[in-house]
Amino acid sequence: MDKIIFIVLDGIADRPVNGKTPLSSASTPNLDVLAERGILGIVDVFKPGMRMGSDTSHLALLGYNPLKIYTGRGPFEAAGAGIEVKPGDIAFRCNFATLKNGIVVDRRAGRIKDGEILAEAISREIPEIEGVKILFKAGVGHRAALVLRGEGLSYQVMDSDPKREGHPIKDIKALDPKAEKTARVLNEFMKRAHEILSSHPLNEERRRVGEPEANVILIRGGGVAPKLKRFEEKTKMRGCVIAAATLVLGIGRFLGMDILHVKGATGGVDSNVKGKIEKAVESLEDYDFVFVNIKGGDEAGHDGNFEMKKKFVERVDEALEALLGVDAFIVITSDHTTPVNVKDHTGDPVPLLICGDGVRRDEVKRFTELEAAKGGLCRIRGRDIIPILMDLTGRSEKFGA
Amino acid sequence: MDKIIFIVLDGIADRPVNGKTPLSSASTPNLDVLAERGILGIVDVFKPGMRMGSDTSHLALLGYNPLKIYTGRGPFEAAGAGIEVKPGDIAFRCNFATLKNGIVVDRRAGRIKDGEILAEAISREIPEIEGVKILFKAGVGHRAALVLRGEGLSYQVMDSDPKREGHPIKDIKALDPKAEKTARVLNEFMKRAHEILSSHPLNEERRRVGEPEANVILIRGGGVAPKLKRFEEKTKMRGCVIAAATLVLGIGRFLGMDILHVKGATGGVDSNVKGKIEKAVESLEDYDFVFVNIKGGDEAGHDGNFEMKKKFVERVDEALEALLGVDAFIVITSDHTTPVNVKDHTGDPVPLLICGDGVRRDEVKRFTELEAAKGGLCRIRGRDIIPILMDLTGRSEKFGA
Repeated sequence: MDKIIFIVLDGIADRPVNGKTPLSSASTPNLDVLAERGILGIVDVFKPGMRMGSDTSHLALLGYNPLKIYTGRGPFEAAGAGIEVKPGDIAFRCNFATLKNGIVVDRRAGRIKDGEILAEAISREIPEIEGVKILFKAGVGHRAALVLRGEGLSYQVMDSDPKREGHPIKDIKALDPKAEKTARVLNEFMKRAHEILSSHPLNEERRRVGEPEANVILIRGGGVAPKLKRFEEKTKMRGCVIAAATLVLGIGRFLGMDILHVKGATGGVDSNVKGKIEKAVESLEDYDFVFVNIKGGDEAGHDGNFEMKKKFVERVDEALEALLGVDAFIVITSDHTTPVNVKDHTGDPVPLLICGDGVRRDEVKRFTELEAAKGGLCRIRGRDIIPILMDLTGRSEKFGA
Repeated sequence: MDKIIFIVLDGIADRPVNGKTPLSSASTPNLDVLAERGILGIVDVFKPGMRMGSDTSHLALLGYNPLKIYTGRGPFEAAGAGIEVKPGDIAFRCNFATLKNGIVVDRRAGRIKDGEILAEAISREIPEIEGVKILFKAGVGHRAALVLRGEGLSYQVMDSDPKREGHPIKDIKALDPKAEKTARVLNEFMKRAHEILSSHPLNEERRRVGEPEANVILIRGGGVAPKLKRFEEKTKMRGCVIAAATLVLGIGRFLGMDILHVKGATGGVDSNVKGKIEKAVESLEDYDFVFVNIKGGDEAGHDGNFEMKKKFVERVDEALEALLGVDAFIVITSDHTTPVNVKDHTGDPVPLLICGDGVRRDEVKRFTELEAAKGGLCRIRGRDIIPILMDLTGRSEKFGA
């Protein structure tokens, strides 16, 4: 059966500025070849006009219903940080931050890079609270993840992160009487972590050299880990994920997909895009479904930088040359629109391109927001893509006889 | 109010072979006229990418939700064979077959044509088992249908049909404890039918002349008959069905539609298509909604024969000339794609054409898979068609005020 490379150009779609988008103004000879060979359309990643996070959008693109399974980003960040998250676990995203007299003065503790050492100290000294197992692990930079495992827990709690610097850290409050134990455990965790961190040699050293201490853990994005069908069970495809973003890796791991690493993949506009695409091609040997997330376009969109986004499209296009001779289905889409004039995700539909054996080639020759809307796929939903691919590659069951 | 001829060109949609499909390469002057007069679009018969059987697809095209009502093909086949199926009945498709030392050596008993005589003998001698009423009737050729009516029954049983010749016939097994009585009744039915058939004069004669005996009944496709709103009650349209396939006739009968017969309608590429279309036009006098199934394209698709399929499209087109002067809404679509390169149903969308008074005529001039995707209807679902037609013909209720 046919194999698939599924590429998400994160946040690459845009709204027009003087009639042009980064996609429509960039020179994209390789994307043009793929467009000419394939069928295009536009996709409401979940529903028309709905602004999607990166978590909910990736779940939808992989064929899952975020409305049924998503309660917060925590479980996926925790999986991405390497914690083996289990259904029912309550999980959070965390930051190492700097607290001074109860005020959060730096939400990223000077973008500290030694989180791992601090996380290990916390894990060692706080294995459990009130019978609740505590799993804590550092992520990239100042990021970390926290998982609570035990009875009587709930994700219905407020964040401790004030979101803005210069504001006091918040006590975690239960939003529901069933979450009171969880709030107690989290407050106790923050208190003890604060003590451990404050006296940690690494922070003594940072104080000495005048760097912001990483002396507190900010907690946010709580969610309960859902029970999901593994991607392979659902689709009959052995899948892997090539991405830099912890979140995307976490979603992949959560769905039982393998995580592949590429040197120089940063998740930024400087990422080793070529390396990621080459790795995707190599991986066809071992996997049926290779999922690639390329995040630079989203970064440029959030920065409001049209030229940077356009140039990133051109860098991606160069890397896509490696796909032109590949014997596999190639799918290219985006997880949401991140317009440079908005600097945040919007609910506009995103373009989709599918090429491969048996596809009904249409006359669209460019992968842009508006050209794609003229394509043979018309307008579909994000969750339709996987069933369409399973059908095109001969993997779907017949409904009826 | 306006009347409707609704034509399903069964399995006519395809995937491109060297850039062409049977629909796109055939010469279709009459379809072209209808396309020019009408509005086109593509249809996910149930959901994008979902491979549909002929049963589930026809239910969806007629406006019913197969996910809610479909459990198996049996009830519709039984209705098509002429049994008056009632909600709650458990029904099966059957074959007369040839058993030798417990092995099914011919699943069609030499494509026997005298099933009716054998079915009568079985019906007469097995009116009931364990208080369960047995209704058994021959269909076309080696086909038959079986209905069980009574208390404590379930369709959750395995087939006795081994599906391949040279394999032993299977005992019917319950898939659910609630189906144990059903399994017992079916096994007893098969045993007694085997005795009746083995000693039947018709089989003695077949033995004498060296033809395969029809000495056993294979059972498959079990389902429970759903309780459905009659088509007329649902749509306010008095409907009839013109088709050769027992299944399609059965669905029509199940929905309370009249069945019209056309001489020479075979369900194959040699069918009397012209006769069916002419009959459809005549029937407008007595009916609001004339449903026509034309099956040859599906047969050619299953055979993998591009040329045969293309020629069949051209034969259909000739017959459609009779529609050009008709004062009625003309609807042409398909129930699923049956690509010659796949030889089975796929989940690709199918083209749809609607012409009639007040329709928003678009610029599409050909009824093909890709041209239809450029049409004014864009991409809709199979279950949307009947509400659209009810609206176009002034039959729908207003929602709100």
